[in-house]
Amino acid sequence: MATQESETLPDAYDDLLSRYERATYIGDAAGVLSWDQEVVMPEGGTPARSKQTSALSGARHDVLTSDAFAAALEEAEAADLPDRETAVVREIRREYDRAAKVPKELVERISEETSNALPVWKEAKAEDDWSHFAPKVETLLDLKRQYAEHIDPDADPYEVLFADYEPWLDLEQAEAILEQLRDELVPLIDELNDAGADLAAPFDGTYPEDDQFALAESTLDYLGYPDDHGRLDTAPHPFSSGTQFDARVTTRFDESDPVGAIGSTVHEFGHATYTLGLPREEYGNPLGQNRGLSVHESQSRLWENHVGRSREFYDGYVGIVNEELGTDVSAREAYEAANQLYPDNLIRVEADELTYHMHIILRFEIERDLLSGELAVEDVPQVWNEKMEEYLGVTPDTDGVGCLQDIHWAHGSFGYFPTYSLGSVMAAQLFEAAEDDIDGLHDDIAAGDFDALHEWLTENVHRHGRRYRTNELVREATGEDFSADAFVEYANAKFSDLYGL
Amino acid sequence: MATQESETLPDAYDDLLSRYERATYIGDAAGVLSWDQEVVMPEGGTPARSKQTSALSGARHDVLTSDAFAAALEEAEAADLPDRETAVVREIRREYDRAAKVPKELVERISEETSNALPVWKEAKAEDDWSHFAPKVETLLDLKRQYAEHIDPDADPYEVLFADYEPWLDLEQAEAILEQLRDELVPLIDELNDAGADLAAPFDGTYPEDDQFALAESTLDYLGYPDDHGRLDTAPHPFSSGTQFDARVTTRFDESDPVGAIGSTVHEFGHATYTLGLPREEYGNPLGQNRGLSVHESQSRLWENHVGRSREFYDGYVGIVNEELGTDVSAREAYEAANQLYPDNLIRVEADELTYHMHIILRFEIERDLLSGELAVEDVPQVWNEKMEEYLGVTPDTDGVGCLQDIHWAHGSFGYFPTYSLGSVMAAQLFEAAEDDIDGLHDDIAAGDFDALHEWLTENVHRHGRRYRTNELVREATGEDFSADAFVEYANAKFSDLYGL
Repeated sequence: MATQESETLPDAYDDLLSRYERATYIGDAAGVLSWDQEVVMPEGGTPARSKQTSALSGARHDVLTSDAFAAALEEAEAADLPDRETAVVREIRREYDRAAKVPKELVERISEETSNALPVWKEAKAEDDWSHFAPKVETLLDLKRQYAEHIDPDADPYEVLFADYEPWLDLEQAEAILEQLRDELVPLIDELNDAGADLAAPFDGTYPEDDQFALAESTLDYLGYPDDHGRLDTAPHPFSSGTQFDARVTTRFDESDPVGAIGSTVHEFGHATYTLGLPREEYGNPLGQNRGLSVHESQSRLWENHVGRSREFYDGYVGIVNEELGTDVSAREAYEAANQLYPDNLIRVEADELTYHMHIILRFEIERDLLSGELAVEDVPQVWNEKMEEYLGVTPDTDGVGCLQDIHWAHGSFGYFPTYSLGSVMAAQLFEAAEDDIDGLHDDIAAGDFDALHEWLTENVHRHGRRYRTNELVREATGEDFSADAFVEYANAKFSDLYGL
Repeated sequence: MATQESETLPDAYDDLLSRYERATYIGDAAGVLSWDQEVVMPEGGTPARSKQTSALSGARHDVLTSDAFAAALEEAEAADLPDRETAVVREIRREYDRAAKVPKELVERISEETSNALPVWKEAKAEDDWSHFAPKVETLLDLKRQYAEHIDPDADPYEVLFADYEPWLDLEQAEAILEQLRDELVPLIDELNDAGADLAAPFDGTYPEDDQFALAESTLDYLGYPDDHGRLDTAPHPFSSGTQFDARVTTRFDESDPVGAIGSTVHEFGHATYTLGLPREEYGNPLGQNRGLSVHESQSRLWENHVGRSREFYDGYVGIVNEELGTDVSAREAYEAANQLYPDNLIRVEADELTYHMHIILRFEIERDLLSGELAVEDVPQVWNEKMEEYLGVTPDTDGVGCLQDIHWAHGSFGYFPTYSLGSVMAAQLFEAAEDDIDGLHDDIAAGDFDALHEWLTENVHRHGRRYRTNELVREATGEDFSADAFVEYANAKFSDLYGL
């Protein structure tokens, strides 16, 4: 869909772009099938769906790895291209190299097996039975190990898989950030727990799902989510998917916890807003694609935490909550409710901003050991529970609220979790920069006016697509190297204040 | 997905099948995208969706027309195969021949343009303005003419396009049936109108959409539609789509006309039941695919008309209607309401069983003249209205209830309409055979027991997939050649009785 001014660009570049775009379109079609499978597909549809997604993976792979594609790529690389187009070719080269090394049969097999694994994970979760899901994990781990081996037989398979989700940060940098988080947050969490605080917990009733759905709709509307380019649905594991033309969100509801639904809705809104901010005229090529999962998560966490869990946000927003839920909660009470620390919480997606990262570190360690073979699949529940006790001081009663809680392994997504922490700390750094650049940002947020923030994010992050590598993008947007410093500072200040340290 | 006992079959056959199955899976993925576009996609998603569907059309075309596919096909044809496999190869050959003649660019272009045309048709219909839609029709007609020309430059383009929907009945046979219908039905309709009849019209209130949706759900349940292999949604133009694992239906509601929603629900149920009756173990190959649109329509019309508009059906069913709508209608009254003749009705999908065919003949004639160039696109409203007056004695006030009422042209589906009449007459012939074969069928229907009928249809129609050509399938199932005789006899008897002729 590129509308490059291409008169000065070589034909090979145009040819390459049109081939690459075709691959994107097929990949995005697979995204629609995946949305469908998770949101609306009847259970019995799985066998056909697995075949369909597998065929699309194969078709996309065929396009990306054809001789003509390779020839166009080489010719485009040999040409003297402007910076922008050089970046496009760099991104396509990276994707080509990874695709070309993996046999199509394996790509199709992974796709089919992940589609098959999804209902089994659901059953296992409902039955609280890891052993029901374990054979699927075994299969997927094995396939993903093969996949990593094809791409780089000499590398740590975890590192290879991680790069599928975050292409331009090396694992060493990611690990350093996780370590910094652990080192800084563990003592802070201890201190806060010791201090204790009598934060308001005003949502102590039962809030029917219908009311919460209406609240989620109003929330999206309040934040500026466009009706004609998205939709809201319910899914057991909330997610966002789509394109800059159609970026959908899902959310989930717990009748006793409307704060959770608000957080999850604002989070997915952040993802969708990034997607919608990608340039439409570049749809299909790297300039119209998101920069990877760390940056994606920075957008969801920025809205969820730095906007949606801020004191000033509730000034304007609490009225909507009260209207939709029939409550009579003050802005301060709602703010405190949104920022309770729950050290005994078992569920990652319900975690507060601090303990969240302990959940990530746990998963990172387990996945690494699973991939290296150091940890057997059958031992996951035991190790999970031990680590929960060690990092969070709490042990899950069942696999359902323990090692079966996340959908990621059913998707075959090993190596994905660190991007959650990376995105969270990136969010803090970006928000700090936005605060510097936007006069009166906090007043705007209090007034429910998000235009300047939207504009800043579009200008500094969204519109670039994959123009810059991850570290470059952060530097372009903030003037600083990517680090966890802003997050640590933010977390210390916010929670010290809340807990009166 | 074939699980043929393939030890005695040549490798080329297996290779051919697996290639063909890949094409089916991609085609079915496109079907999911199309369902999504019509049922859940936000409006603004169109530009991306058009690219995605076009890429899938191209990918499917690539698979079907590759040299390896052609080689496997030739080798399989040269082998001495059993009847069943010979039929499979016959069907694949037919599809290959049509695909290979059409350039991929044209296939993709048609796909993209139809996806783009859909929202324009919706706008035009809402605005009652044919001229807004006309340029899209012009484009699609032109592309479809090119398409037909590639397949057979010497044939009538209408005939070529018709064969996309009904591969094994020639247009001459179809025209003969349409003529027979006109010749038999016009005098019958006149006679019935002259006779007049005081049929009950008990649904004279307003029936909220929610109640009608609940009625549609209960109706599907009553007929035996499986929850875990389908779903019900609302769409402006009801349709059914999917696979034997996941066959979905949509329906529509008019608050003043619950009878219409019942008919449309039962109709789409019939389609879905056919799809679900295709053998699961053959998913992806011709033995697991429907026999074309005439046979498909025979299944929807059989349920809609011969079951759902029968006197005995309402014995068991009327209780559900009364419960969901809060009415107090007798079985006889509901039966009469479902069989009102509406000679002044403008809308095909709301037509009674007799005038329905006049709507089809009108569209058939207009499409033929559009394709041949005899009729200009801009003149469609005028000709439509003239023919409505001629065949049905009524003139539409606006394009919205006239030439813009059907979605088919926005899908680029020229040549599709005759299959509606062919299916309707086939339904009568099949139902007559089922009546002969099933003891107490009418009592079963009165009791809401559809097992024997389901079984008969599965045994005689569904399970065969594309094993037989259309005429062969009818002969296999009924022992008679395909004709409109059973329909004409049925229509005469039923309506003479209702109108006391």
